[in-house]
Amino acid sequence: MKDKQLLMIPGPTPVPQSVLLAGAAPMINHRGPEFAEALEEVTEALKRVFQTRHDVFILTGSGTGGLEAAVVNALSPGDAVLSVSIGVFGDRFAAIAKAFGVKVEPLDFEWGTAADPEKIRARLAADNKKEIKAVMVTHNETSTGVTNDLAEIGPIVREHGALLLVDGISSLVAMDCQTDAWCLDLVVAGSQKAFMIPPGLVFIAINDRAWSAMEKASIPRFYWDLGQAKDYLARGQTPWTPAVPQVFQLRAALRILEAEGLQACFARHARQAGAVRAGVKALGLKMFAESSHASNAVTSIRKPDGVAVAALRKLLLDKYGVVLAGGQQTLKDEIFRIGHLGHVSESDIVATLGALGMALKELGGSVNPAAGVAATVEHLGGP
Amino acid sequence: MKDKQLLMIPGPTPVPQSVLLAGAAPMINHRGPEFAEALEEVTEALKRVFQTRHDVFILTGSGTGGLEAAVVNALSPGDAVLSVSIGVFGDRFAAIAKAFGVKVEPLDFEWGTAADPEKIRARLAADNKKEIKAVMVTHNETSTGVTNDLAEIGPIVREHGALLLVDGISSLVAMDCQTDAWCLDLVVAGSQKAFMIPPGLVFIAINDRAWSAMEKASIPRFYWDLGQAKDYLARGQTPWTPAVPQVFQLRAALRILEAEGLQACFARHARQAGAVRAGVKALGLKMFAESSHASNAVTSIRKPDGVAVAALRKLLLDKYGVVLAGGQQTLKDEIFRIGHLGHVSESDIVATLGALGMALKELGGSVNPAAGVAATVEHLGGP
Repeated sequence: MKDKQLLMIPGPTPVPQSVLLAGAAPMINHRGPEFAEALEEVTEALKRVFQTRHDVFILTGSGTGGLEAAVVNALSPGDAVLSVSIGVFGDRFAAIAKAFGVKVEPLDFEWGTAADPEKIRARLAADNKKEIKAVMVTHNETSTGVTNDLAEIGPIVREHGALLLVDGISSLVAMDCQTDAWCLDLVVAGSQKAFMIPPGLVFIAINDRAWSAMEKASIPRFYWDLGQAKDYLARGQTPWTPAVPQVFQLRAALRILEAEGLQACFARHARQAGAVRAGVKALGLKMFAESSHASNAVTSIRKPDGVAVAALRKLLLDKYGVVLAGGQQTLKDEIFRIGHLGHVSESDIVATLGALGMALKELGGSVNPAAGVAATVEHLGGP
Repeated sequence: MKDKQLLMIPGPTPVPQSVLLAGAAPMINHRGPEFAEALEEVTEALKRVFQTRHDVFILTGSGTGGLEAAVVNALSPGDAVLSVSIGVFGDRFAAIAKAFGVKVEPLDFEWGTAADPEKIRARLAADNKKEIKAVMVTHNETSTGVTNDLAEIGPIVREHGALLLVDGISSLVAMDCQTDAWCLDLVVAGSQKAFMIPPGLVFIAINDRAWSAMEKASIPRFYWDLGQAKDYLARGQTPWTPAVPQVFQLRAALRILEAEGLQACFARHARQAGAVRAGVKALGLKMFAESSHASNAVTSIRKPDGVAVAALRKLLLDKYGVVLAGGQQTLKDEIFRIGHLGHVSESDIVATLGALGMALKELGGSVNPAAGVAATVEHLGGP
């Protein structure tokens, strides 16, 4: 049954059949009236998802391209930025800024923990000369399964006056992200996460403060230029030929999400994440993320003694058709990760915990598989 | 019948139903074994399409992103390049280089004509100090429907020693492009043209000379870094999450193309382009492109007196469901264009010429619609 898979990784995520098929519609002229209509609908719906009254743009590329767009539109070579990193993707954001000549000051926190807002406050308070032009932060760190508290961090950065650039690639739709209310100046999201569509698009929300910064920003840019995106959007177009199928799919997926309601969607992710954590704990496994900031999109789990991550993932794939993610970089053989964002059902969660328990037992782990699914089901059926 | 369209623009092009549905397959782990297998198959097939023994990479983005990748990987700020332009896309390539600080010397030819290889030879011969680091040229200029003679230009540039960077976005698969034999150092192609798949991917062929240049190239780069693409391809991956559906579609389309055979595919495009030109001439319309270099991918036609391009395109769309392209920039109201690349059948060509003749007559043009389709059919049925 190799063709029957439960894709439980933090992106690409499973795509509803109706959304998959929306992408199989015949091609149309991307500079014609039908495309303009679709682009307007999804752009307006994205503003509601980002909870912003400002601009949102759709670019064709991977999430990393969206982070590059944030850097090249908002910053200049030599600008000082504070890079708040709690994992692989925070480090990547910093690496992109460095590649373009930005002076990056790291404010790193131990992997598995969230950024301490008070440390950000203290560092910014010490910046008397207001040399720090921007703060870069990851909302949901996919590599460690930790969510930063943007509602606290946002106002701290705004008080200082620096721009706040947010990697929200895996957070948007899976959890609350109040772009305007939390003082986030630029937020990047990716299509292949909780939006329930395939990879190929990035979405960028940008407010007036970020536009002002952009006018002075001097890193060279062309493909990712948001000024071009704005000019073309006014005509119902994108500057360069977009990934048309993913735009069709975005329209279909956003209609599903709006029917569910954004708050209900956040609650679903929270409930399912809680069920995963309950099941994992009942199996006697140790969480990698600190519990106060465990992500509602992805759960990171320390490998049990005597079980290799690669062997566990292989057995889960080959025998149970369950696809989990390993760790990245230094965490490669230390943790594994369960993605539970996007089009994931309660049955998927139960099945995953069942397979995990059985596979661990088969690999010699001292676990009680029944306890895992029992705790999961109990959580899902709870108040 | 608004949902029954003949999409006759130079991209996005019609996609075969089987290829559309290949993109509707469930998502998979882009860092797993199934994706690695697909990536290897398409990469090897692309090398045959590009007629190269060197590297080919698949990047997620629009064609313009591929041109940006060419610039930022091969060049340094202050490098002198000779930009051979015969239209909008040649100018765009130059604009990208300028945006990244490259010293661009334009060698422009009148729109509607091809680049004169002898003028390129003369300019390079005058460059005694070998200051020109690279020559940028468009293989098929989509905005004017003119194809440059790369088989002649390539060896001229190689003799001088400069790198040759080629925009092959709309040429690959529609016409012969012998990357290695013609001395092309870096060639960019786009998925939504003759490859018969939706937009979202760009393909880049790069040889050893371009790799050597890359080692010294100092324009900052991250997302488009081909060094990263090479490292990850060795593991069966792309550095950033790719547009997975388009990779599935590329596999399906390349299998169709390999079954047809590359030479047969070029011959099909040549025959159909000839049929379009025969029909257009029989309608008494004037070609915009010089006949010696008229493109086999797209035909540009001067608007007849007394007929507005916008009105013609609107009537063709509303009444006949035929989607043609207008002109771009200064050609906006001067020409219209018929795309005939990719998954276009002989019946599509006949239907398009029929609709064009009827629409022109309805708009008051002095044309004989029957003569147009007669000439088209005669050409298609010819030797």
